[in-house]
Amino acid sequence: MKKDCRIGIIGATGAVGQEIIRLLVNRKFPCSEIKAYASSRSAGNVLKVDEWEGVVEETTPDVFDDLDIAIFSAGGDTSKALAPEAAKRNCVAIDNSSAFRMDETVPLVVPEINPEAVKEHQGIIANPNCSTAIALMGVYPLHLAFGLKRMFVSTYQAVSGSGVAAMKELENQSKALFSGEKAEASVYPHPIAFNLLPHVDSFLEDGYTREELKMLNEGRKIMNLPDLKVSCTCVRVPVFRAHSMSINAEFEKPVDLEIARNAIQSFSGSELFDNPSKNEYPTPLAYTEKEKCGVGRIRKDHALDNGLALWISGDQLWKGAALNAVQIAEIL
Amino acid sequence: MKKDCRIGIIGATGAVGQEIIRLLVNRKFPCSEIKAYASSRSAGNVLKVDEWEGVVEETTPDVFDDLDIAIFSAGGDTSKALAPEAAKRNCVAIDNSSAFRMDETVPLVVPEINPEAVKEHQGIIANPNCSTAIALMGVYPLHLAFGLKRMFVSTYQAVSGSGVAAMKELENQSKALFSGEKAEASVYPHPIAFNLLPHVDSFLEDGYTREELKMLNEGRKIMNLPDLKVSCTCVRVPVFRAHSMSINAEFEKPVDLEIARNAIQSFSGSELFDNPSKNEYPTPLAYTEKEKCGVGRIRKDHALDNGLALWISGDQLWKGAALNAVQIAEIL
Repeated sequence: MKKDCRIGIIGATGAVGQEIIRLLVNRKFPCSEIKAYASSRSAGNVLKVDEWEGVVEETTPDVFDDLDIAIFSAGGDTSKALAPEAAKRNCVAIDNSSAFRMDETVPLVVPEINPEAVKEHQGIIANPNCSTAIALMGVYPLHLAFGLKRMFVSTYQAVSGSGVAAMKELENQSKALFSGEKAEASVYPHPIAFNLLPHVDSFLEDGYTREELKMLNEGRKIMNLPDLKVSCTCVRVPVFRAHSMSINAEFEKPVDLEIARNAIQSFSGSELFDNPSKNEYPTPLAYTEKEKCGVGRIRKDHALDNGLALWISGDQLWKGAALNAVQIAEIL
Repeated sequence: MKKDCRIGIIGATGAVGQEIIRLLVNRKFPCSEIKAYASSRSAGNVLKVDEWEGVVEETTPDVFDDLDIAIFSAGGDTSKALAPEAAKRNCVAIDNSSAFRMDETVPLVVPEINPEAVKEHQGIIANPNCSTAIALMGVYPLHLAFGLKRMFVSTYQAVSGSGVAAMKELENQSKALFSGEKAEASVYPHPIAFNLLPHVDSFLEDGYTREELKMLNEGRKIMNLPDLKVSCTCVRVPVFRAHSMSINAEFEKPVDLEIARNAIQSFSGSELFDNPSKNEYPTPLAYTEKEKCGVGRIRKDHALDNGLALWISGDQLWKGAALNAVQIAEIL
């Protein structure tokens, strides 16, 4: 895309929106202008992200006339209402919500895995769910080596996935506990400070959450593995911003630890961080504000014949959201 | 055992030791005296646990001459050195460390599962590892219903498992973060506040930790299932005292959710807490200082034919340690 590309961030004032601006600036995205959009409530405010600053404008269908790319990070309802308006006006919508991910006419893209899918877009390109994107940074290179059949994923998800208000809630509840005050819960139904909630996104009839099904459905679509089996349990943990996952993965071929380690290390989206004897393994603090996800604790699985157990940490706001979207914009 | 039974707590000043005293008092354990023992460093100090108080004495082999039961919770080295001394003096040692758990001559007992094994003791009875005991509170009733073949366990373990100093470290690091100070790490190799460490107990050659193998080896011994397959990943989380676990379990027989729920609810060590539509599921805060473990999020597993996914929270200091030991003493 030419240097005079005009890019807009829809939902620019949110946790992900601000990271998108930061990454566009830091990665020197070739555009003439970055524009910030949000709801009418924030319109007129000056938004500052590091050195960058701009006046927030209200998102209306007309704004897409002046944009080449719009990255949406303002929730599913805004995306459903406005991404088609962008597409209609020849502005490509990169959508961070779940609104279009399973739409057959919309490519769901992780640039390290299926960049070619970008070309098939009809105006909208979907960004995957944060936990799916991070899990695949560990699992996809292993799939290339051994052929993925099935995986069990237990997540340890940071509060940044619920936005700025949730990060503030974790902070306030933590402080309140030490000052003897009562910890108020408003973003989450129960306290999150020094607690765990096996509850991310809403519950479905069969007892799974929407978040848990995303790992299954999005994983199949992104890796083009329609028969992949995935069992997922999603848990919110009192961590500010990087997600982690414990994964048990079963493969078609016999696994080899050396090949597995090399596959991870040579994959562009991940790095191997796996020296237990030196207490080196990924942690969410160590992988906050890192572009690559960290993969460690790789070992032969005790309960699967061709299986590997592993642990991944990755920045939820970056690879889990903003970075993946910016990478898609870079392909465009 | 007769009312004039004399019971001693070895390691009484520790996190588990104090909970043992609390539970003996609260459950009106039929004994004439509760005596507190620790290292020479604490000897002479007055220990207070709620209404109870006593002078701490140094643990020497001679003290067992005056005891009928000694509950050991002072680490593996103390147990190895002194539990045989107790046994020699006709004082039954209930050992909370891992020192004797896999010894074929020592019963490893979870009173809800294999109380009859207590009778076979030769002076020492082992208490299981905390995460094993809590996992089995959810899995064993399901095993009785469907026949357990294999399970994948990812743990979310509280810092109380590392003792009082770790609980203080979590508190201090959390406070330091908000006051802009640096978070010191001494119990753990990395900060635990707002972080996760996929590292519980020490690493073995094959990349697993000792803690992860305990789930396999102790689970097999307690449930008498020598062929059980268990893959376990143990993770320390910034929670003060209850452990939680995400489990995917595979069974011999087809599973039925109604039967599974009834099995959990009617089991003496657990209770069903599973109403997602009302945001009811176990959390570590809700299961702190509860004798029963909470089991919820029960659903058919997406990646196993006869499988169930579930989530358990249980008080690490109680069912995971002190309560189980006191229950063994009650059987004696």
